[in-house]
Amino acid sequence: MELLRLGPIGHEIPVVRDDGVCFDLRPLITDIDPNFFATGGIARVRAALEADELTELDGAAEMRIGAPLTRPSSIVCVGMNYAAHARETGAEPPEHPVIFFKMPSTISGPNDPIELPPYATKADWEVELGVVIGSRTFRAASAEDGLNHVAGYVLGNDLSERRLQIEESGGQWSKGKNLPGFTPLGPWIRPAAEVDPGNLRLRSWVNGEARQDSLTSDLIFSVGEIIHQLSQAMAFEPGDVILTGTPQGVALSGKYPYLADGDVVELELEGLGRHRQVVTITE
Amino acid sequence: MELLRLGPIGHEIPVVRDDGVCFDLRPLITDIDPNFFATGGIARVRAALEADELTELDGAAEMRIGAPLTRPSSIVCVGMNYAAHARETGAEPPEHPVIFFKMPSTISGPNDPIELPPYATKADWEVELGVVIGSRTFRAASAEDGLNHVAGYVLGNDLSERRLQIEESGGQWSKGKNLPGFTPLGPWIRPAAEVDPGNLRLRSWVNGEARQDSLTSDLIFSVGEIIHQLSQAMAFEPGDVILTGTPQGVALSGKYPYLADGDVVELELEGLGRHRQVVTITE
Repeated sequence: MELLRLGPIGHEIPVVRDDGVCFDLRPLITDIDPNFFATGGIARVRAALEADELTELDGAAEMRIGAPLTRPSSIVCVGMNYAAHARETGAEPPEHPVIFFKMPSTISGPNDPIELPPYATKADWEVELGVVIGSRTFRAASAEDGLNHVAGYVLGNDLSERRLQIEESGGQWSKGKNLPGFTPLGPWIRPAAEVDPGNLRLRSWVNGEARQDSLTSDLIFSVGEIIHQLSQAMAFEPGDVILTGTPQGVALSGKYPYLADGDVVELELEGLGRHRQVVTITE
Repeated sequence: MELLRLGPIGHEIPVVRDDGVCFDLRPLITDIDPNFFATGGIARVRAALEADELTELDGAAEMRIGAPLTRPSSIVCVGMNYAAHARETGAEPPEHPVIFFKMPSTISGPNDPIELPPYATKADWEVELGVVIGSRTFRAASAEDGLNHVAGYVLGNDLSERRLQIEESGGQWSKGKNLPGFTPLGPWIRPAAEVDPGNLRLRSWVNGEARQDSLTSDLIFSVGEIIHQLSQAMAFEPGDVILTGTPQGVALSGKYPYLADGDVVELELEGLGRHRQVVTITE
């Protein structure tokens, strides 16, 4: 089953899709938000599906696809978590997970336009496996224990503006990761029980040309290891999102140009769907 | 007037204090949260005070003081914003504001215990002027325009664990800034109209011995300049908190020991009150 949010920005309807049919979750929940995950929302949705209690959502195929969750408390991103990507940026693979943050307000839908201010001349794509936390997690005892706190998985784009991230940041990356709309997520969340996060192919394209093409088996720190290690330094809340890092093939490598007006950015993550976004420069 | 939240953790009552008298805000608002700031809460409280519509809160003096706001969307922190502090950490003063993030879940009250896990052996204090944003702010045109988006000011402690921040972070500071309770705020928010943020004395003590003692006039980037410059890279939401940086006199300098079990940490910011917290190591 897949969890989605369909409809205009700010008015998305929570939906579960099962065998290709979209069911309206509004009689069951208010939204797919931290409270949904904190109150065992996925199990409740599954029970309602199995009991045949849900009604099909009319016109689902024609609706805008929003991000499949809203208002997380935090979005934590792991940097340099693929060895080949670390090398293409000129860095050594890290000994410990390296993190930065994205504001929850940066979340956008998987097919929304990427609206850049005119000074964002070094905007870059990063296809990533996203983790949605299901329960408060502080000091997870092991990688295995870390995995027990995962509610589901989602495809994310860790959009980055490299001048703000690197040249004018004093070396602290978060500054270039937070322009509005810089965290497209979706199209859906798939429950953790239905995903093997350690063996997924993830790819990106710009204007139809291949950019990134790797496997999550190349992650330096696995999903469980990320949660285990980071939860020694911070407490994750239900609904928090962890973006696990991006593989080689971004513009920062110098092999490809940065994003320009009209560019089409596409991402795909095995079993977790696709993004297709058009870049627009807005004054 | 001062805005406070009084009562047990998770059950704080919103309060306004005027001429030393605490009035219960529950008939007027649900809490001092992003929605409060987004809906002109400070003006509504002032109008209710002036119209004599509020009732005094019984027993306020005996109640725990909580953080004076809850559930901000983001906490953005400026690093190295006092030249002498930059030097004591071995760095040059920055050309652009340098930022990192704290999770909203790290917020605690100004007199709550600082509970450290046993491995947090390099915990450090940082007294800071905190800014509370009153309205969405993206691409503020100038420092003056930036100041127009400030709802109020608050005293904050940017507690830091230096091993996690520096030694095991790959250089990305956020990792050492996010242990639970690492953002004590309070005791109150004072509205922007009543504060000159450019000329406040801020001090800290450990076990009664002076540590930090500086003036916000020494800030490299003023409050308005911080909002102007950072809002080119991100959109601030109502209720967001910006911590503006700490002056010299922290343990990282090598002049003082890191925090240990039983230490008493005190902070003061002119017109914005005091913190008094006791360190406890929790297994």
